Parts: sequence; C-alpha cells; structure tokens
Amino acid sequence: MAKNGPTIAEIGEFPLIRSLVRDLPSDPAVSLGPGDDGAVFLVDGSAVISTDVLVEGVHFRRSWSGAQDIGRKSVAVNVADIEAMGAAPVAMVIGFSAPADLPVSWAREFMTGLREEAARARVAIVGGDTTAGPVVTVSVTVIGQTAGIAPVRRDGAAPADIVAIKGRLGWAAAGLVVLGRGFRSPRVVVEAQRCPEVAYGAGRQAALAGAHAMIDVSDGLVADLGHIAEASGVAIDIDQARLDIPDPLRTVGMATGLDPITWVLGGGEDHALAATFAVGEVPDDWQVIGRVLDSTEQTEPTVLVDGRPWEHAGGWTHF
Amino acid sequence: MAKNGPTIAEIGEFPLIRSLVRDLPSDPAVSLGPGDDGAVFLVDGSAVISTDVLVEGVHFRRSWSGAQDIGRKSVAVNVADIEAMGAAPVAMVIGFSAPADLPVSWAREFMTGLREEAARARVAIVGGDTTAGPVVTVSVTVIGQTAGIAPVRRDGAAPADIVAIKGRLGWAAAGLVVLGRGFRSPRVVVEAQRCPEVAYGAGRQAALAGAHAMIDVSDGLVADLGHIAEASGVAIDIDQARLDIPDPLRTVGMATGLDPITWVLGGGEDHALAATFAVGEVPDDWQVIGRVLDSTEQTEPTVLVDGRPWEHAGGWTHF
Repeated sequence: MAKNGPTIAEIGEFPLIRSLVRDLPSDPAVSLGPGDDGAVFLVDGSAVISTDVLVEGVHFRRSWSGAQDIGRKSVAVNVADIEAMGAAPVAMVIGFSAPADLPVSWAREFMTGLREEAARARVAIVGGDTTAGPVVTVSVTVIGQTAGIAPVRRDGAAPADIVAIKGRLGWAAAGLVVLGRGFRSPRVVVEAQRCPEVAYGAGRQAALAGAHAMIDVSDGLVADLGHIAEASGVAIDIDQARLDIPDPLRTVGMATGLDPITWVLGGGEDHALAATFAVGEVPDDWQVIGRVLDSTEQTEPTVLVDGRPWEHAGGWTHF
Repeated sequence: MAKNGPTIAEIGEFPLIRSLVRDLPSDPAVSLGPGDDGAVFLVDGSAVISTDVLVEGVHFRRSWSGAQDIGRKSVAVNVADIEAMGAAPVAMVIGFSAPADLPVSWAREFMTGLREEAARARVAIVGGDTTAGPVVTVSVTVIGQTAGIAPVRRDGAAPADIVAIKGRLGWAAAGLVVLGRGFRSPRVVVEAQRCPEVAYGAGRQAALAGAHAMIDVSDGLVADLGHIAEASGVAIDIDQARLDIPDPLRTVGMATGLDPITWVLGGGEDHALAATFAVGEVPDDWQVIGRVLDSTEQTEPTVLVDGRPWEHAGGWTHF
C-alpha cells in the first residue's frame, strides 16, 4: 500500500463503483439510477445529447490539476454543449479508465468534483463504466431536454445580427501559459485552466430571448465563431474594442511578454457561450462583441477582427 | 507517409470527423445529427441510457482484431445493455481517442464497423468526440426508449421463476484462449471474440413476454446471474445438463486440455441475455437453463450449479 492509500486495483472494480455512486442525490426525472444495465429517466420534449472525452496528458495533467478539478471540468465542458443548444441538462453518464495503481483517494476526489459540478449544473449522474487503461481517460455524455424551446443551432445566424457572449475568454489560455512555465499564479487564471466557470442557464436564457445561432467557445472565439459563420453562410466582424482584457490576463501578458488579446480571441477551454441575436434582442447581461455583416458587405463565410482577417486564426486542434 | 497511408495527425481532426460522419443514414427520430454542439432526437416514453468504454490492450488488441470488428463490437456491447432493459435503442454517440500515428484507413474501417452494427441494431449514430490519446479508446453511449413497456430490471426475479437465456455462451472466451496461444482457428470462436453476435430485439421480446428480471451476460453467466440474485434477493440454480457445449468449444477444449464448461459458465463477452420468467411465460426461442429456488429451499442470494456453489465463480473484473 502506497502512501496515498490503497489503489483501485487493490480495492477492486465493483467495490470501487459502489463507493463512487453511494448516496447520489435523487432526482424526480430519474426512475432508475446506477446499478442496472441501463438507467431510466424522463425527457421533456426532444433529447439533446453531447459527448466529450478528456485524456490525461492531452486535456489535463495530474501534476497540474487536482482530481476534484478534473471531475468538475469533465462535467462543465460537456454541459456547456447542452447549454449551447439552448437545452436544459437532465442526466449524464461517465466512462472512466485509469491505471491499476491509481489511488482510490484520487478516484473519490474525482467523483466529488463530478458531483459538485453536476449539482451546480442541475444534472443527475445516472451511470457509468469503469475500466483499466494506461492513462486517466474520462468520457462524459450529457442528455438535455428542449422542454418547449426549439434548439439553437449553429446555422441560424442572419445578416446584421448582433454577436454577443456570456462567460469568460482567455482565462484558461493564460493559465496554461503560467502552468507551462512552472508557475502557480495569478491563481485565478490557474484555477480557470483547471476548471472553467460555465454560465449555467445562460444558454437557456439566450434561447428564450430568441437567439438565432449559438456555440460553446471551446476551441477559441475566432475559431468557434468561424463554425457559426460557415454553418450559417455569413461573415462575422468582432469589434476588438468591446473585448475587455481582464487584469489577471494583463499581468500574465506583462510577465511573459505575450499579448493577452491572443488568449481572448484564440484561447479555448473557458467555455463561454457565443450567440447571435436580432438587433434589440440581446439579453441584458450578455456582452455584445460584434455583428454579422449585412448582405451589402462581405458575403464569404469568415470571421474578421475589426474588419480584417485575424492573423492567429485556427484555434485548437487535436493530433 | 507510412505504407498504411496518411495518419490521423496528417489529415487533421476536423477533416477526419467530416470524413467519418459523411452520408450517415437519416432517421425519422433524429432532427439534428452530428456537426453542432449537440444532436437532437425524439424519445418515446422514458429514456434508457448505458455507456461502455473499450480500451486497447484491455478489451481488444489491434493485432487480434480488425478495425471493423472493433467498431462493430463497440456498438454491440453497449446496445446489449439497452436490450437487457427491454428497451429499444434509438441514438448513440461515440468518443474516440487514438495515437496521432493511427492510419486514417484504420479510423475509416472502424467507422464502417460502427455503421454496420448500428444498422443491424437499428440505432442512429448522432455524434461523437475525437481526441488524441496514447492508445485507441472507444466510449459508446446508447440511448434507448421504453416505448410503452416498463423497463426490466435486475431486482424483479421471484421465487420459482424459470431462468432462460438468449444468445451464445463461452464462444468469446474460447476465442480468447485460441488467440492467446497464437492460433486463428476454429474461426467461429475467434470471430466471436472479435465481435459478439447480439440477439437484437430479444430483450424487447422478453419484456413483452413479461420477464421479471434481465441482464446482459458480459462478465460470465454465473457472475451476471449473481447480480440478479443479489438485487432480487433470490437463489438461482443452473441445471448444467441444459447447457449445450457447442462443437467448436469442444474442439478448443480437446486441443487445450481445458474444460469448455468453464467458458460457458464463466466466460463473458458473448453478450447473451439472461432473464427470469414466471412458469409458462418463457418465449419459445429462449433456452431454459435453470430456475429460481422457491422460498422453502435456499434463501441466501447466490447462484448454484446443479445445487452446488460453482468453484470458478467470480467472473471478469478490471484492474
């Protein structure tokens, strides 16, 4: 037994699962939770589904993030997709692979993080699968419900729409730079890297306000607005003056000699929502950052910053 | 460029995904397929969900199984869980992690296998996530619908019920023994190891016939009936004389000096369904293999074989 206590191999698969799912909160929509071949729950309206895989060494490092943060992040990044459809999350399942020598305490803290964020996002954990694997790999699938509101897709942006966001941009990217250089401060950006602060409910709010198109900013603002531009066949112009550079990002910029605007425009992982609205329909607490060009202007699908292509465009891609 | 053609890193994440989801068949229940933050589909009745993770080196080896078989298996093992609830599969999402040097051709064949088996199981592929990772890791989540029939759980077995199965037992385990010794025949057991033959529709049939309890045999007959016994608080007695030893299993037994009954009773991965029914309610094409003891007999939850504990009990466990 290592100093971290027993490993998941020592405790065994079934006792591990039992300990992880013990005392999950009950949910009126869920008629059968974990422990059978499948879980059973009610969906109001159409079902909306999204899945995300987080791999150690790719999406997180155990030396940079605690188990609890990784658990929270796993829920947050996936629920953000359901939010981006304007749906309300209902139920989620978790796939978990880990090396046999992972301490049970790590798995328990991970589960604590999952539960915390699930409670925050108002989604029920209804099942999962636990297996051995060479690195910690988490797959999360969330099901949401439309509950009377049509889903907001990427292809609905219209000429002359207003583009607005809800949430933070560039914080996680700044945190990655800090961690990559061996530092642990400013703490707020490091924490943002470890787990995003998703504006739960904001996607639903945007859908109710009549959003035309919406996306979860996971790859970077320019890249993700690019998906809306391409799907909708429109050109989007970001007004850089409307993008705040928050103080912690300025601090990291000064310490590293890097320009924080590249994190704001190009950094993913904060999981803000970006949406387009008809003029006059942007919810009060969303931040206007640009507009869809009208048909007398640019017509090729693209994203511009202050009317020009952005030199660092591309966003995050795997492999 | 290796002899196997370009790698997934060379083609890039987004072109890879586009090529994988091209021309997916349309499905009347699915109003929005892959390509947005979430997919949207209709569920008739309650939703039933199950997730499975398959890890290279744990659940399959690329040297033993082709990409197409691994794709088929990924769908089959997960839909089997939905079948075991008596539900009808509707939609599925796939998480896929792979090393950057994986040939694109491998990913395409894997996708062909997913599509083939999804068509067989009558489930729509509606989305997924693709990431880098040290080994090929597949997570599959299937959503089914109850559509007017109450889910069949593990905890409904009653004293004096008849225990019956639908599907094969021991074939995949015999295949594993063959492959583990470096052989490729008998081909039928090797193929059974590479991809199970799930009796799609049989779970629904059992539910309609009034099955009291049901489970997907993924860990082994004795182990999985043990889950029913424990959840239902009953003792189950398997009548060994009713278990056929199919010819290919006899052949492998003779060649290896092992007793094929250990594969039939203890081998997982064939994904037969096991269920309990009131006397007289077993569907014609299900195979009776035992009974639930009545309350005048054994009352401790357990699984017996010909009235005695089975010496090899335990079943498959990870870690």
